[in-house]
Formats: sequence, C-alpha cells, structure tokens
Amino acid sequence: MTIQPRTLKGFRDYLPQAAGSREWLIEKAKGVFRSFGYLPIDTPALEYTEILLGKGGAESDKQLYRFEDHGGRDVGLRFDLTVPLARYAAQHIGKLGTPFKRYHVGPVWRGENTQRGRYREFLQCDFDTIGTESLVADIECALVIHALFEQLGQRVQIHINNRKLLSGLLEKLDLGAQTVPVLRALDKLAKIGPQKVAQELEAQAGASPRQAREVLALAELEGDDQEILAGLRPMLAGSELGEQGLSELEEVLAGALAGGLPPGRLVLDVSIARGLDYYTGTIFETFLDALPGIGSCCSGGRYDDLASLYTSQRLPGIGASLGVDRLLAALEELDALPAGGASAPIFLPLFDADRLADYLALAAELRGQGLGVELYPEARKLGAQLKYADRRGHRLAVVIGGREWEAGTCQLKDLRSGESSEVSLEDLAAECRRRLGRDS
Amino acid sequence: MTIQPRTLKGFRDYLPQAAGSREWLIEKAKGVFRSFGYLPIDTPALEYTEILLGKGGAESDKQLYRFEDHGGRDVGLRFDLTVPLARYAAQHIGKLGTPFKRYHVGPVWRGENTQRGRYREFLQCDFDTIGTESLVADIECALVIHALFEQLGQRVQIHINNRKLLSGLLEKLDLGAQTVPVLRALDKLAKIGPQKVAQELEAQAGASPRQAREVLALAELEGDDQEILAGLRPMLAGSELGEQGLSELEEVLAGALAGGLPPGRLVLDVSIARGLDYYTGTIFETFLDALPGIGSCCSGGRYDDLASLYTSQRLPGIGASLGVDRLLAALEELDALPAGGASAPIFLPLFDADRLADYLALAAELRGQGLGVELYPEARKLGAQLKYADRRGHRLAVVIGGREWEAGTCQLKDLRSGESSEVSLEDLAAECRRRLGRDS
Repeated sequence: MTIQPRTLKGFRDYLPQAAGSREWLIEKAKGVFRSFGYLPIDTPALEYTEILLGKGGAESDKQLYRFEDHGGRDVGLRFDLTVPLARYAAQHIGKLGTPFKRYHVGPVWRGENTQRGRYREFLQCDFDTIGTESLVADIECALVIHALFEQLGQRVQIHINNRKLLSGLLEKLDLGAQTVPVLRALDKLAKIGPQKVAQELEAQAGASPRQAREVLALAELEGDDQEILAGLRPMLAGSELGEQGLSELEEVLAGALAGGLPPGRLVLDVSIARGLDYYTGTIFETFLDALPGIGSCCSGGRYDDLASLYTSQRLPGIGASLGVDRLLAALEELDALPAGGASAPIFLPLFDADRLADYLALAAELRGQGLGVELYPEARKLGAQLKYADRRGHRLAVVIGGREWEAGTCQLKDLRSGESSEVSLEDLAAECRRRLGRDS
Repeated sequence: MTIQPRTLKGFRDYLPQAAGSREWLIEKAKGVFRSFGYLPIDTPALEYTEILLGKGGAESDKQLYRFEDHGGRDVGLRFDLTVPLARYAAQHIGKLGTPFKRYHVGPVWRGENTQRGRYREFLQCDFDTIGTESLVADIECALVIHALFEQLGQRVQIHINNRKLLSGLLEKLDLGAQTVPVLRALDKLAKIGPQKVAQELEAQAGASPRQAREVLALAELEGDDQEILAGLRPMLAGSELGEQGLSELEEVLAGALAGGLPPGRLVLDVSIARGLDYYTGTIFETFLDALPGIGSCCSGGRYDDLASLYTSQRLPGIGASLGVDRLLAALEELDALPAGGASAPIFLPLFDADRLADYLALAAELRGQGLGVELYPEARKLGAQLKYADRRGHRLAVVIGGREWEAGTCQLKDLRSGESSEVSLEDLAAECRRRLGRDS
C-alpha cells in the first residue's frame, strides 16, 4: 500500500519555474542589500514561546504553531522576522555594535485561515538599520527600495509619510491617547471613504465631529510634495512633534534626491498610516507603476525602540519588508519574470552514445567558458530530447551527430525562434555567448 | 520586567560573518548546480507525519519534531530533504517529466542529542537526477562535486565505489540476505580495523571466518584504480551483479576523465560503504586535500527507486549532499572563507554633516558603477567610524572632509594595509575597481 503523496493544507511545493523565479528575486534583493552595506543574519525557526507570544497581538498568538519539544520546552515556529530580530539584537548587540545593518530572508509560519488565499508558510525578506536615529538611515531605506525594484526592471512610486504629523495633530487636539483607534480608522480611508472614517473616529476614538474633520483634513491633503507641506504647516503650527515630523520629511525627501532617486519616485502621501502603532517616524509604502492596484510591495518605517521587551538598551531603527509573494504574483502578471527560470541556457542532446566522451568534453569546455550546459543523459531520439529541452526553457541547443563530429561542426538551434545554423565547434563558445548576450 | 533573550538548546543564531560565509557557499553551489542544468525546488518545512515516519529508521522517528496543528492534523518538521523529494516526485513527476534534475537547499530539524556537537536545525544542500539509469548521471554527479569544490578554491579527492561489487560478492558467498549488517560492519573499517570488523561480520551477519575474510579482502583492496580493478575481477568472476558493478565503475571513471576531471581526483576506493542500504550502485565520498581528516564533505550515490512508498512509478536516480556545516568548519580552519564576509567593499565615513547630499551622491555614483558602498549614517569622529569599518571587513575607506570636497579629491585608505593615498574624485571609481580587482 502506498502513502498518498500530499502537502498540508495551506502549504505548497515550489515547482522549478516558481522556485527559480523566487530565487532570482531573492538573489537580486540580497545583491542590493549588500551594495549598501547590510549584512546577512539568520535565526532559528523555533523559539521559546515566551519570546514569541504577545508580540504580534491576539491573532498572531492564535495562529502560532506551538508545541512541546523533546525536552518539555514550550516552543513555537517564528511568525515573522521582526520578533526574532529584536531577540537577536538584545542578545548580541554588545558584540555587533551599532549602527547594525542587517538583512534576513527566511520562512515564517502562521496558522492562518487559508480562505483568504494566504499560505501558512511564506518567505519574508527584511532589511533594517538598528541603533541610530540618523535620518541618513531613513534616506537609505528609500534608496534601497528604489534600487531593489530597479534591479527587477520595475519603476515604482515610493509613498512616504511621517507618524509624527498625525501624533502632533492628535496631541494638539487632545486625542494623543487615541492613536491606535485613530490609526485603525485612517487605515481604511482608501477602502471605506472619509465619511465612514469620520464615523469610526467618533465611535471608536471618541473624537468630536470637529476633531474628526481636522484629522481627516490632514489625511486627505493632496497635491505635490510642496503643496502638501504648505497645507500641513498651519495644521501643525505650535506642535513640536508635528513640526519635527515636517522637517524630517523635508530632509528625507531632499536626501533621496541627492542620493540619486529620480524626481517623482518618492512622494509625500499623508494618507498612508500603516496600521501598527509600532512605527514612530518615517513610514514607506511602495507601488509598482505597472500594477499599482496590487498594493504595496515593500513597506516599512522607523521605530523608537526595537527590543524593549528583551533589553533595557534602547535600539531605535528603521527597516522595510519586501512582499515576496505579492511581488512575484505581480511580476508574473506583468510577464516580467526571467523566461528560462534557473535553466542552464544551453542544451546538448546526446545523439550518439559511442561519442559520450566527446559530448562530456564539449560540455566541460563550454562550462569552463562560463556557459551553463545541460547534457541529456540518454541517447534517445532527438525529437524526444528537444521536447524535454522545450519544457525546461533552455535558449540554445547544440545538436551534433556522427557526421558533425567528423566535420568539427554542430547545428546551433535557437529554441525560441526554432532557427538552426551550422557553427564550427571552434567558434561555438563565442557564438553562444554572442547569442545569449544579445537577447538577455 | 524583560524577557531573557535566548535561543533554544541545540539551535543557533548566525552572526553576520557566519551568515555571510554560508550564503557565499550556497550561492557558489547553486551556480554550479545551474550550470549543469539542475533546477531549484522547495517543499514545506511541515509535512503530514505519515509522510515522514518510518522513512529514516527508529532514531529518526524518535528525533522527529511532531505535533498536532490547529486543524488537529498530525504533523512534523522534515528531518531531511530526501523524504520530501520522494513525496514531491511522486506527486508531480507527471508534470515534471523525466529525467528530472533538481537541487534543494533548506533547513531540516532533528531533536538530536546535542552532546555530539550537532545542531537540531541545520541546512541541507542536495542535488539529484531522477528517472534515469544512465551512467551519464553518475558521471555528472562526480563532475558537479568536483566543480563545487573548485568554486570554493579547494582540491578534493572523490572516492568512488559501487554497491554491486559487495552485493555480487555476498550473492556468491550466499550472504545476500545479510547486506545490512555487513554494510554496518564495513562502515566501521577505518575506525575499528579489520580484525574487529571480521568479528562483527561473524557475530552480526552470521558469516563464517572464511566468508568474513573474503568480504574483508574485497574491502581492503588497495592501489591505483587499475590495480584494484584487477584485484576485483577474480573475486567477482561468475557474479553477474559484481561484473556489472565493475563495468559501471570503469565507465564512470572513464567518463569523468572525458568530462574534464584531472587524473587522480576521482579514485576507486572499495572500502567506502555508506551505511544506508538505500544505495544500489555508484557511491561517492569527497575529501579535501587540505583537510582529509575532517571526513567526507560531499557524499551520495545511486538508488534503484526513490519514491516506492508514495507511487508505483519506478524512479531510479543518483544524487549527493553537500555537508554544509562540516565544509564551513573546514574552510574556516583552512582560512579559506572570504575575508570581508558579505560586507560592501567600500566604506564612506560621513565626515561633514552639512555635505550629506554630496556623500549621498558619491555613494550613488559608486554603486551605479557596480561598487558596493556603506555610508556611515552619523557624523561622528573619524576614528570611531573607521573602528566600525574595521570590525566589518570593508576593504577600502573613502575619506573626504571639507577641504577634499573643495579640491575634488579624497583620501583612499586601504583598510588592510592601512596605507592612504590622495585620489581625485573623477578617478575614484576606476581606482577602487583596480584595487578591489587586484586582490580579489
């Protein structure tokens, strides 16, 4: 009796095309992180439950994969990379020193309701600068986000806001204690509109109709950066926090331009709130020019203190998280993923088993020149071998039979156009490089 | 009250240097896999327990991290990547087709006794060719192993054997049913010596003293490949299986030479047995020339049928597994890991906060030329900034103060030698590239 081969509900296998796309994305992202001096770290999938519980709210606690290990310890699978980072920083910051810039790519687990089309295991891809309040780190965060999407061939608009604007206004309105319900209400602005948000502000945050109007007036400011800033100034006049938020925004906007961001890529958007009250300064959301409706593909912000639950050392910082699954879905919809996946570009059919040594030597020679080659392992009919190659997305096939070996030539077949031409084996590596370079 | 920040026993955090080394190793390995046409896949960390139980023996079952999930399912964390591959192949092979060449890098979990210095979470890095009996796949397996270590700057000796030799001999000796205890005994040959192995063969495998002598005579054959082959022929004469093993070995040895392996890198070693009775043909172990005593750093072999527990489709294959932790320990001992880890090669101190825009622009320009740059985020004293850089392993520091900005120059400091020289900002990118290229 065989066991039914199946994955758990909410979990998925990655077939080669999907795994290759994800690997391509992650390698691009890591290259960008490193080019800005961020360093990789890793933490265990399993943590003591006391590290994880209560850090992501009641829903997160309910979704925790939690169990008792062989030693009777109460353990859980990490549900994000931020809580482990906080624990990690508290534990190691003495050795690491500050500022500490890290990236971390790894799976996280949440026993979510899968009806929303979400998976219970997914990859997170985060980068953070910890231990500095310098706005250079905020500027750099915008530059990294921009460079990430540039590497993926996508133009984006990065929306920036600063939490101090709202906090300053709420302070002025004596609603400072109501930040959380206000944020929750404002987060729905795009979805339910200003009238319903005003109702929610009154019902949930105890705002008067006039206060609700003033909060909405701030969140609804529109125009270019300078127009919005001009609108904000009178609203926040007299609030130290609000004015600080304004000057921070101006500094980050100017710094991003100096750091090479083309004008119009980083735009002030006072409507973004980013639900969590965790953020305290700059916040970012990122939208693809080609597919803005899919939502923010990279979000983050500045926080006052990362690890207060685990250490008395104050660790302010800023970071963002790339939405890997959403971004891959968008790139697929845009047909912007690399076509052949991770396939070796060259396919070498094994035509004549007696010549195996020659095929092996040729494959080695091409690889020695930096060209990936897949040699088919069986001397089956050429048609069957080429069918295999088609499915895998190779770019070129090097077809050589007995006659070609004698003549020192091959048929070089472009697997996209179907065209073939005779090429001497001497020129083969150069010709392959030329063809691959030209269309890649 | 703060929560004590700590990891679970047997688990570990990766600090940036260690994470960078591992990332470097894995990216090199993936590059080699791809250059031979292997494709990436991924599978979930969690599987139904019935998929995992009983597949790795009693010890593996005992070490399984097993629990009930939110839906009352009996689930476990994968303990290797082979069982998930078998399940995956059974589930998807219709879509994937054969031959199917995949690599898979991912964490696995085993609740092992940590006294042996082993971790309960570790990374596995496997590659396999499934669905073909062609020895081209065996030859390629040796070529991949060799290319992997070449990429890491290490010369290796790959030891090859074929299970059919021993199986043939045991058949001849009427010990065919005793393969498992014989393998278990022979696996200890290097550790406990031939006399104790002979005793174990008699006690555990029911061999007569003469039979034990004949088994040991095979496992103890020494010399160059031709001498060993010559010694094997009479021992295996008349055994169809044994003679098949001999001809397979000869074909793989010849193919590896044709495929570019220098002579002496793939050597016949009849003493390797690779404990598991899972292997049925070619088997490999790999030893570093510079540190053979650390043990095999890449091992694998051919199996008759990967997924018989999950499907009736026969899936023969061959693959190997890179011993990531052992290899990293060896490379560290050999001082053969990249010095700066994943650090950006260039460090740019922020000397003069009023010139922030200029520093940002310069960093952007260097990055635009493909040079990684870390800009320090605070205008602290130069000494403190350079101390930070030293700890991180940057290669060059570009020191620019007010005077240098006026003059359009900088002090380019080599952080290894400590030497500084004045370079014009115009020439900076080219000069950095020259210096980094020269020593890398």
